[in-house]
Amino acid sequence: MNVNIMLFDNFETLDIFGPVEILFREKNHALKYYSLNGGVVTSAQGTRIETANIQTADNKGILVLPGGLGTRTLANDKNFLMVLKTIGEQAAFCLSICTGSALFAKAGLLDGKSATSNKKAIDWVMSTSDKVKWLKKARWVVDGKFYTSSGVSAGMDMALGFIKDQYGALSAEKIARDIEYVWNANKDEDFFAVE
Amino acid sequence: MNVNIMLFDNFETLDIFGPVEILFREKNHALKYYSLNGGVVTSAQGTRIETANIQTADNKGILVLPGGLGTRTLANDKNFLMVLKTIGEQAAFCLSICTGSALFAKAGLLDGKSATSNKKAIDWVMSTSDKVKWLKKARWVVDGKFYTSSGVSAGMDMALGFIKDQYGALSAEKIARDIEYVWNANKDEDFFAVE
Repeated sequence: MNVNIMLFDNFETLDIFGPVEILFREKNHALKYYSLNGGVVTSAQGTRIETANIQTADNKGILVLPGGLGTRTLANDKNFLMVLKTIGEQAAFCLSICTGSALFAKAGLLDGKSATSNKKAIDWVMSTSDKVKWLKKARWVVDGKFYTSSGVSAGMDMALGFIKDQYGALSAEKIARDIEYVWNANKDEDFFAVE
Repeated sequence: MNVNIMLFDNFETLDIFGPVEILFREKNHALKYYSLNGGVVTSAQGTRIETANIQTADNKGILVLPGGLGTRTLANDKNFLMVLKTIGEQAAFCLSICTGSALFAKAGLLDGKSATSNKKAIDWVMSTSDKVKWLKKARWVVDGKFYTSSGVSAGMDMALGFIKDQYGALSAEKIARDIEYVWNANKDEDFFAVE
């Protein structure tokens, strides 16, 4: 199954590369890196990454969307949101990390669904849509095919949760052990409370 | 202070991008991405990243070296090891994650020093040098200017330890909180025992 990593300028680096490390280790997955127009995308931490144009993707797989400061611009970019809506509707699963859920929300993908986001940015995220049931206290939230995580490092815990849901707890535990990661495995736990 | 990220083909993605996320958040740091010959480097997870030639770097800062399958080839690459020795000697601090410590060891940088590495690869790593005091049980090890971490995700805990040592515990705790990371803060703790 394709894992389509959707990048944009000023995405937060660990948001995506924590889940990348975990999702890659499921043999059934093939990771590919995309952006709206293809070409080089630069993370908030200055990492310059080659991507293909999302129009060339097979969208039927798993869509993974990071957060980061770049979401503030994209939340008002109608073209980006229209494309995101299309690829999100076609995907078997949609995973967002941190403020990536604000983009899913603005695209209308989360209407009527539960979701979470970065604890420090939760006020802005909640302002992007009143059609989403925003959960302030959760490491990650699952609603149908949508997985949304709390801030940055929470994406790793969600990715392991996704592996558990799709491939079983033993698979998730093996991956955590192989990358020597202490998995915060309770999705409903509140590790970093909203102040 | 420059943070010089030294990449190579088949490096392990999270090895470097966990520490990148953390080291970036210290305002005193400027992150730059290098490789032996410059150009695009591809991680073990297929991420294609633009790098500059290490010969163009100001080496006086912090050198950060990931591990990954690519280390198996580089451990026998005399040209790479000679360059690594030079830049390691010039650096104020040298940080390695996972099997990156095998390359520091083969370059002779760890002679007479204590170090650790990935728990699943520890036998191979120990075979790369008998002049290093290899510690099988540690989340990360500090010996002078050298910081070496255990496997993959342990690099994040080490990076926070480095921040604590250089800038204080409050700085490290703030970064962990900002990225919603549950810091495994005890460097001597054995989270994943060697089997």
